[in-house]
Amino acid sequence: MRVYNFSAGPSMLPLEVLEKVQKNLVDYEGTGTSVMEMSHRSKPYDKINDDAHTLLRELMHIPDNYSIIFVQGGASMQFEAVPLNLAHSSSCAKGDYIVTGNFSGKAYKEAKKYGDMVEVASSKDKNFTYIPKTSAESFRSDADYVHICYNNTIFGTRYDDVPDTGAIPLVADMSSCILSQEVDVSKFGVIYAGAQKNIAPAGVTIVIVRNDLLGQESPLCPTMMKWAVQVENKSLYNTPPTFSTYVASEVFAHLKSIGGVKTIQKINEEKAKMLYDFIDQSSFYKNPVEKQYRSLMNVPFTTPTQELDASFVAEASKQGLISLKGHRLVGGMRASIYNAMPVEGVKKLIEFMGKFELENK
Amino acid sequence: MRVYNFSAGPSMLPLEVLEKVQKNLVDYEGTGTSVMEMSHRSKPYDKINDDAHTLLRELMHIPDNYSIIFVQGGASMQFEAVPLNLAHSSSCAKGDYIVTGNFSGKAYKEAKKYGDMVEVASSKDKNFTYIPKTSAESFRSDADYVHICYNNTIFGTRYDDVPDTGAIPLVADMSSCILSQEVDVSKFGVIYAGAQKNIAPAGVTIVIVRNDLLGQESPLCPTMMKWAVQVENKSLYNTPPTFSTYVASEVFAHLKSIGGVKTIQKINEEKAKMLYDFIDQSSFYKNPVEKQYRSLMNVPFTTPTQELDASFVAEASKQGLISLKGHRLVGGMRASIYNAMPVEGVKKLIEFMGKFELENK
Repeated sequence: MRVYNFSAGPSMLPLEVLEKVQKNLVDYEGTGTSVMEMSHRSKPYDKINDDAHTLLRELMHIPDNYSIIFVQGGASMQFEAVPLNLAHSSSCAKGDYIVTGNFSGKAYKEAKKYGDMVEVASSKDKNFTYIPKTSAESFRSDADYVHICYNNTIFGTRYDDVPDTGAIPLVADMSSCILSQEVDVSKFGVIYAGAQKNIAPAGVTIVIVRNDLLGQESPLCPTMMKWAVQVENKSLYNTPPTFSTYVASEVFAHLKSIGGVKTIQKINEEKAKMLYDFIDQSSFYKNPVEKQYRSLMNVPFTTPTQELDASFVAEASKQGLISLKGHRLVGGMRASIYNAMPVEGVKKLIEFMGKFELENK
Repeated sequence: MRVYNFSAGPSMLPLEVLEKVQKNLVDYEGTGTSVMEMSHRSKPYDKINDDAHTLLRELMHIPDNYSIIFVQGGASMQFEAVPLNLAHSSSCAKGDYIVTGNFSGKAYKEAKKYGDMVEVASSKDKNFTYIPKTSAESFRSDADYVHICYNNTIFGTRYDDVPDTGAIPLVADMSSCILSQEVDVSKFGVIYAGAQKNIAPAGVTIVIVRNDLLGQESPLCPTMMKWAVQVENKSLYNTPPTFSTYVASEVFAHLKSIGGVKTIQKINEEKAKMLYDFIDQSSFYKNPVEKQYRSLMNVPFTTPTQELDASFVAEASKQGLISLKGHRLVGGMRASIYNAMPVEGVKKLIEFMGKFELENK
């Protein structure tokens, strides 16, 4: 029986994609080889790589003056790649950080090794349950960039609007919300995202970068972290994570076939609304996030006691609703309801929540 | 029809492993999820990760005073990670390099950014067709490490013995020969290898490091490149390339089931001998490498003319013998005959070579 997997990532992939990948696993479309075995310099892989880049551009309406790369290392590597690439060729980048959770905090910490970094705003005072307000004046006028995390996987918040940074390039970690809702890419200097939530198996990371920001690396920047090197080589500087990129291209094609980001956003809003509405009408369950900033993707919630939380997670798992345990920084439960989580999965979760409440309140 | 794929990497995987992975692709051993969808903090993935580490230790007889990590970035990332990790906590490592081909040359070039690097020996004078002799006295007595590439994928050479570096830690790139023959790990300080030749789909890299060499990173070393951080976290510092690690563990289990490295070495020696013997008895085909240093894994060869080379590659491909085109630095053909290339594949290649010779000489 296929379970509903609420993991924060790696997480569910569309069943149609999994079944297609399975069918083609040993013999990819009559080539006589698995994609896993293909040279990254071969014609069939060239097409897969091109498709992945082209489909992502199409799905996100990425303007022509932006480049897309698929690289290894995860978003965590980009925490360091950001200051090393945006250094205006000096060895000391100047970055302004808005800290809204665990990963934006890590990004800030890692960046400090490579430059003059400032935490401009933070929502730590209320355990990251909101997004702090900023304006173009909040930032140093000579900052190389402003860094945000657009959706906070652990705390279940998201930006409800793109912050205004004036002329300073805005860099956004979109690991847990990329392709879940429409965004105006032209408002960003750089967008990056690990694939393992909305796109593909872990091991590939997407960077979308405005072309005028390329080629200004710090002399300390490892070649393997240079965006410009990967852009020049169409993400094939060295052997890329071919299989993850292949699955990404299949997920993109599937998303396109069901109507693209606009369609999935509607479904995501519907799923999130159902779950938040249920939590809000209940006196048993609580979500700590200010309503305006509630994430579409990650929904943390608690029961009245830690004992009941533990029992909830265990019981849910027996019903095929798995990986619902919350992050230790928040406690309780967390339902990650990414693109590939069917509406049916959220309905089953709500049904179980109702039953559990009745039995335990 | 399954083809025989002579690609230098990514390359063939054992058919038994591919079929098992295919069977489990949508529902891994009754868990109701694909491995691609599993949280890297979940119990089933914990077991996969543990198995991968344990089986590799067993297969290579890795002593207890060595750690194993699975990381992203490819061997190319390790070109930079080596000087950054072996810096004795200074910002300037001292490395001695033996340059025996393209990748050891790249490793040397990348390392120069991070320290005082010397090319101690090279086989460039004869287009890398041999391995230069060195002794413990060849190296600077205060070098932090000596770096070699144990098997040269492009030029088809390999070390016939582990070079003596005295007390200086020896670092070896074994991307294209790991698990193909027995090696005495205790003679090395560090061994690293991209997985996409003998182990798994591209996207995971193995580093085996002697514990006393850990924790001496340069202050410039990105956290994501620190071996010690990955060791402390059992390769789970951030989201790892879970699916590639899973396939690696299946390849390890398969290798163990057929008798381990000792057995595959015998088969590899047999395959290589058949092919070299055929080339040597022919006046039509030539392999440029000094016999003592011929690779077991990568066999470059040429016909009398470039036109015939091109025709050979095209004709062979039609017969299901694919990716035989040589690297542009060597020309002609290259047959990469890694662990997963069946004896039958080499026989078919030789049969085709015989036929092609008859028709074209």
